[in-house]
Amino acid sequence: MNDQAPDQTQPSTQRRLIILTEGHSEPITAKTAASVLRYKPSEVVALLDTTQVGSTANQLLGVGGETPVVGALAAAPDANALMLGIAPPGGRIPGAWRSVILEAIDRGMNVISGLHDFLSADAEFSRVAAEKGVQLIDVRKNNERDVANRENIREQCLRIHTVGQDCSLGKMLVALELSLALQKSGVDSKFVATGQTGIMIEGDGAPIDCVVADFVSGAVEKLILANQHHEVLVVEGQGSLAHPRYSGVTLSLLHGCMPHGMIMCYEVGRQNVNGMEHIPLQPLPKLIEVYETMANLMGPSKVIGVAMNSTFVTAEEAELERERVRSELGLPICDVVRHGPDELIQAIQAMSPVLATT
Amino acid sequence: MNDQAPDQTQPSTQRRLIILTEGHSEPITAKTAASVLRYKPSEVVALLDTTQVGSTANQLLGVGGETPVVGALAAAPDANALMLGIAPPGGRIPGAWRSVILEAIDRGMNVISGLHDFLSADAEFSRVAAEKGVQLIDVRKNNERDVANRENIREQCLRIHTVGQDCSLGKMLVALELSLALQKSGVDSKFVATGQTGIMIEGDGAPIDCVVADFVSGAVEKLILANQHHEVLVVEGQGSLAHPRYSGVTLSLLHGCMPHGMIMCYEVGRQNVNGMEHIPLQPLPKLIEVYETMANLMGPSKVIGVAMNSTFVTAEEAELERERVRSELGLPICDVVRHGPDELIQAIQAMSPVLATT
Repeated sequence: MNDQAPDQTQPSTQRRLIILTEGHSEPITAKTAASVLRYKPSEVVALLDTTQVGSTANQLLGVGGETPVVGALAAAPDANALMLGIAPPGGRIPGAWRSVILEAIDRGMNVISGLHDFLSADAEFSRVAAEKGVQLIDVRKNNERDVANRENIREQCLRIHTVGQDCSLGKMLVALELSLALQKSGVDSKFVATGQTGIMIEGDGAPIDCVVADFVSGAVEKLILANQHHEVLVVEGQGSLAHPRYSGVTLSLLHGCMPHGMIMCYEVGRQNVNGMEHIPLQPLPKLIEVYETMANLMGPSKVIGVAMNSTFVTAEEAELERERVRSELGLPICDVVRHGPDELIQAIQAMSPVLATT
Repeated sequence: MNDQAPDQTQPSTQRRLIILTEGHSEPITAKTAASVLRYKPSEVVALLDTTQVGSTANQLLGVGGETPVVGALAAAPDANALMLGIAPPGGRIPGAWRSVILEAIDRGMNVISGLHDFLSADAEFSRVAAEKGVQLIDVRKNNERDVANRENIREQCLRIHTVGQDCSLGKMLVALELSLALQKSGVDSKFVATGQTGIMIEGDGAPIDCVVADFVSGAVEKLILANQHHEVLVVEGQGSLAHPRYSGVTLSLLHGCMPHGMIMCYEVGRQNVNGMEHIPLQPLPKLIEVYETMANLMGPSKVIGVAMNSTFVTAEEAELERERVRSELGLPICDVVRHGPDELIQAIQAMSPVLATT
């Protein structure tokens, strides 16, 4: 996925991260930080946010336990790499971040970024990194130039895909949890990462939203071909087919991975498109119809279950919602964190006679 | 659209092109050449194809009249620019093409390319072009980094979009012909180019299939905002929502331009996906349903007519097909080249009370 330094995104016991979440240490904006804390907790030494010094990761992000929030790199001397855990406001790296990045390089730390603007394309960063012998790891950097060919697909490998009502509501987390639960039940399952955070966690994948548009489905098809020796692939979703900005990425991904089964992900209570509050979300029944229509252009596919993200409601509200949606849609539904993933795992196992008998 | 040398893609009486179509001087593979010959005939001095020396453009491509095919740059000394009119087999520039490009540069000619691999990224081409003071014009080169915002859209500007059953069947040509016909009828219409050939003809636009996936709909929205002072925009389509490789590009474009009306384009007799002969095309009624479903996620939209490409059938066969499809779909239908665009122009004018009274 990353021509520059693929090894650095591999799980490593040597990696000791300080994650920059400056001014935005909350679960949605800092979702990269939250996800790395959830799935690679032993690698995270501290969060860096001068506005929240003294707090813990768990207090701010709901994960990460007692991992401290510090105000300077010097306060976490054990760290050997700086990870940018949020996107910069306005898309450009602010001056204060530049100082931190340069200081990290000066301290001999690698810097890991999932931004669209590559650290390695910055002349100053590149120069000082070369001087210090440290790596600038741009997880989104890629040179994908292959189109999909729709050949040599192994249909005995069950392809499951998390799709969603919107961006930023948990499609990656659901895919990871489902794959982990399948593994625990003895199934040879693989999480297929399609975004920068998933890649940082899994160690491989393709940063599809940063691929040149013509080659997105080709990049996804290559992931399928490379991993279809597993029994089950759980492919991380991106965006939504109804998202005004990212629907094309979502469709390239859907048609690139041709899922047999889709898990529809949504966040309880969210009414409008994330970051575009003037645009209402499409209702779930409509979206299920749309996903099935579009997926079936390439092969038989159906939504087999619903993953609710009930983070922002009480347990009682979550239960009411769960029963309401179950009755409305007639599909298995659970919050994989709050309820555990069993109901969805059963739906996946029911798709494959081979799996059902393992 | 092109940060490097936008002026060179503008219509210019000074531009005298020789177009490379080496070994592929036929209408589909050489569609860039054919389109430039059709819409900018006065700019084309010759085609360059060592396998077809002595033929005329019209004999090989069905357009371009007596424009000669030559076997060397020296045979067309009037030309001051070399345009690459086909994509290289395998995606990489063959050695023989490199020699021609280097010879063109050496003769002081600019070189214009619509390839995904940029001439300006080639160290040798860049060096010799700089030495000779000529320009390497990569029409697909862009630095699009804006997402769609869905704000300040002028709904009084009628947005028409050509969509298709497949790639490479005439969506650009139909959009150009419709816009020209609207202009002739007194409507202030603008052709909005979204691909390299359209940009070469129109002089502006966005090469959306070469934009980073996250920013495609944003690039399209910017074209709408920049041009919505016109009464009508006819937005060039790309690919197909059912294309295994390019469906995501198509959806980003559809959601970026939010058409009020769509013109469904197809080629009479084509059965399978272009370049993927093992995959059958979806039938037109199904595709119309799919396009309308997806377009309506963003706003009211419908398919208002059908543009048939009947190039490869007789006039009689075309007439039978036209009546068959008209009766099956209940929509206006014509081949804009063979029959003229009147039937579709009436359908467009019927969409807008303002336009209908002009």
